[in-house]
Amino acid sequence: MPVIDLNSDVGESFGSWSMGDDAAIFESVSSANVACGFHAGDPSTIAQTCRDAASANITIGAHVAYRDLAGFGRRFLDCSQTELADDILYQLGALQAMAASTGKRIHYVKPHGALYNAIVTHEGHAQAVVDAVRALGGDLPILGLPGSVVHAKAEAAGLRAVSEAFADRNYTPEGTLVSRREPDAVIHDVGTVTANMVRLATEGKIVAVDGTVLTTDAESICVHSDTPGAVAMAAAVRRALEAAGIHIRSFA
Amino acid sequence: MPVIDLNSDVGESFGSWSMGDDAAIFESVSSANVACGFHAGDPSTIAQTCRDAASANITIGAHVAYRDLAGFGRRFLDCSQTELADDILYQLGALQAMAASTGKRIHYVKPHGALYNAIVTHEGHAQAVVDAVRALGGDLPILGLPGSVVHAKAEAAGLRAVSEAFADRNYTPEGTLVSRREPDAVIHDVGTVTANMVRLATEGKIVAVDGTVLTTDAESICVHSDTPGAVAMAAAVRRALEAAGIHIRSFA
Amino acid sequence: MPVIDLNSDVGESFGSWSMGDDAAIFESVSSANVACGFHAGDPSTIAQTCRDAASANITIGAHVAYRDLAGFGRRFLDCSQTELADDILYQLGALQAMAASTGKRIHYVKPHGALYNAIVTHEGHAQAVVDAVRALGGDLPILGLPGSVVHAKAEAAGLRAVSEAFADRNYTPEGTLVSRREPDAVIHDVGTVTANMVRLATEGKIVAVDGTVLTTDAESICVHSDTPGAVAMAAAVRRALEAAGIHIRSFA
Amino acid sequence: MPVIDLNSDVGESFGSWSMGDDAAIFESVSSANVACGFHAGDPSTIAQTCRDAASANITIGAHVAYRDLAGFGRRFLDCSQTELADDILYQLGALQAMAASTGKRIHYVKPHGALYNAIVTHEGHAQAVVDAVRALGGDLPILGLPGSVVHAKAEAAGLRAVSEAFADRNYTPEGTLVSRREPDAVIHDVGTVTANMVRLATEGKIVAVDGTVLTTDAESICVHSDTPGAVAMAAAVRRALEAAGIHIRSFA
Repeated sequence: MPVIDLNSDVGESFGSWSMGDDAAIFESVSSANVACGFHAGDPSTIAQTCRDAASANITIGAHVAYRDLAGFGRRFLDCSQTELADDILYQLGALQAMAASTGKRIHYVKPHGALYNAIVTHEGHAQAVVDAVRALGGDLPILGLPGSVVHAKAEAAGLRAVSEAFADRNYTPEGTLVSRREPDAVIHDVGTVTANMVRLATEGKIVAVDGTVLTTDAESICVHSDTPGAVAMAAAVRRALEAAGIHIRSFA
Repeated sequence: MPVIDLNSDVGESFGSWSMGDDAAIFESVSSANVACGFHAGDPSTIAQTCRDAASANITIGAHVAYRDLAGFGRRFLDCSQTELADDILYQLGALQAMAASTGKRIHYVKPHGALYNAIVTHEGHAQAVVDAVRALGGDLPILGLPGSVVHAKAEAAGLRAVSEAFADRNYTPEGTLVSRREPDAVIHDVGTVTANMVRLATEGKIVAVDGTVLTTDAESICVHSDTPGAVAMAAAVRRALEAAGIHIRSFA
Repeated sequence: MPVIDLNSDVGESFGSWSMGDDAAIFESVSSANVACGFHAGDPSTIAQTCRDAASANITIGAHVAYRDLAGFGRRFLDCSQTELADDILYQLGALQAMAASTGKRIHYVKPHGALYNAIVTHEGHAQAVVDAVRALGGDLPILGLPGSVVHAKAEAAGLRAVSEAFADRNYTPEGTLVSRREPDAVIHDVGTVTANMVRLATEGKIVAVDGTVLTTDAESICVHSDTPGAVAMAAAVRRALEAAGIHIRSFA
Repeated sequence: MPVIDLNSDVGESFGSWSMGDDAAIFESVSSANVACGFHAGDPSTIAQTCRDAASANITIGAHVAYRDLAGFGRRFLDCSQTELADDILYQLGALQAMAASTGKRIHYVKPHGALYNAIVTHEGHAQAVVDAVRALGGDLPILGLPGSVVHAKAEAAGLRAVSEAFADRNYTPEGTLVSRREPDAVIHDVGTVTANMVRLATEGKIVAVDGTVLTTDAESICVHSDTPGAVAMAAAVRRALEAAGIHIRSFA
């Protein structure tokens, strides 16, 4: 029976500001990327998110980020490798304690936003992520883009590198994402998205924007949570996967 | 052989700003109250402080605080009990991971600044500190002012309440500190300070400002680290205690 | 022809987080309390809010606050009078430049949240607000609760103190607000709210929760903007006032 | 009689953390680059710095920066042009109000740290600085590196671009600074530094590290304030310039 993970970003409210509909997305996903306070997620939000994830029996991952609340972690910050490794270890420790207080623990690390993009190619920042995970102890997997530098460094350090696919994004024939500057970057048609994800989960194939068939080792599908449309799309993906006999389960 | 602990605040630099001479104070104390990032202490500072404490074989405590970098945690912040408990648990988790990465762990919790003062009487904030320590798991002792509300609540929750005395402060006949608004709040004479601390460690007595002899259960002496004079005073206290045959050792 | 002002809080988004529906509330109010960055309002949000207020021909006030993004300025912060005065002057200057870049200027100051409540009675913080307004130069009016300490201090310093009433709140026979801890603190019935505000604008009277008729010198009515219901209530208040022949106009 | 300006960074303390010896540096310089709160400088520090600059009759410039207290503005932050322009306008307005309250005003803008370096080449961020200065109104000069993109954009926008030289840095034959990664980046010999600066002020010449004589239009010399040695160097530069009959005066 084929198996796939569904992950989404949660816990991104901050103080009086709300973000996303975590309760709704928890009905669809198997893995929750929980904000750790540096791009979003005040401690009370994190605590509540961990409690909700525990109730919904969803696997918790650490959604670590650059220290940039004003930019929501979406702006590259040229910090040193050491600063970044320490910033990430701090976030991991904070989330770990919050999760443990609800009887859960962190099962993986998924860098957020600009950090996620940077470590596809940035050697120093990629190493910082790996260094922080190692410094935490244990051997948490790192969820990221297939072929990214952080994955190479994770495996070199004896960590598991887990690849993900994006449910609603088009791919180039080379297997990279079509840039958001292009008109066909995002797939809006629910039927196309769900068919793509069923194919991914059953055959390990993605059809690129020009028809090229790509092979992928993605063990997780990233779905968005920040708009009502995104939450509905996530639910549709889950329903389609289950209807196709695919088991939705954390990779961890 | 009589035993006493010496504690001091460390790790209070932040980014490019330095605070205190931690290397010097580590030569005198047995316990280090390490800032956790909410009043001071960026992650790299915390990491370095934990490494230095590990090298010097000094016991690490968590110096948790209100979220107030601009005020250095010295301003009362009227947050809710839940917000405060979550803020403290977040800090404890972060420090715990940083300490663990150096082979150490947190052995006690000492609230900082305005929080320290608030929980002498503030029921909700005192309970928040206790709730956070319980939420972390284990049963870390709480270091604070003798007779404070937080100590009563700690003991009610099954936690150890550890009392401290202040090396360079005068006491009222009632056993409270002479207010800093009074001219004789602080004792500047090294000989008086060291004689007082030797008496404390050997007899469990403090002589109040009017000559009244007070009995105390203080297991730790707080020395300051933020000025060259304070560091010299700490060294003098340590020398005097050792000369009197008193063993300097963490209470934890 | 009777005249009254309608004011509401705007510009309270921050980075990727949205708050309120400013475009909708701008259709109802004559005065906009614009966040200044210390409790909410990043610079780009402030700039956009000033542009929108300029387009809608709405008077801009400075919604100054304690430095507390995590608490949205809703938590009392025990800063010194000098710190607070400097923090407020900083906010006033920042907003002034943003407003000026859109061809507008600040016409009044309304402290936000916990600061608003504190300066009803807190001598030092009330004086800090007055000191900051004086330090800015000019003589901006201070909008606040009738009878508050900040109003006495404003008038003592030669500033205009402008009183406001709350559209949807019940009043005690003594003229204070019924505490939010009481079940009848908030009036939810639109007809009652609009009738109350028409009476206020035409007769200068408020009927307290027990039927006592109170006289008020309120020149402005505060309406909320943070929920769809609040925005609808604001629109209803405006329609009712206009239908009663009352002119909606800034007090400044 | 030849004239030159001496500028230095001040107001970089934050809350309980001190940075630099502003009182000492005020004895040497004619222009003060005052931190505006985004990389350093809490409002009370800024206020005190403006008062001290006013007392010492020193010209105030705005030392604007990326929003990055933890990194002291020394890390490139990939914000959008609009975000940066708004962030800078906010800082300019805040400082302007603080300066005005002491009877002074801002006379120029000098970007700080990573922003200073970025706008030597970064088109969008350079334009953002210019846009912010224009949005403030008036026509403040922009102090920066000779030949930088921000200077070209400033002049294109009708603003004055003022060049500076660094007292203690070696120059390449191409007129750029020798990288700090090179052993001879910094000149430590006081006699060499003062001779260089006298030549600069009288002849408009800088001798590069290989002996090449460069012509410069620098109207200001940047001296450091962050170490006791730097302050002594600044004093030596001033004494040497005055001994050579050069008048120390703001370019503004």
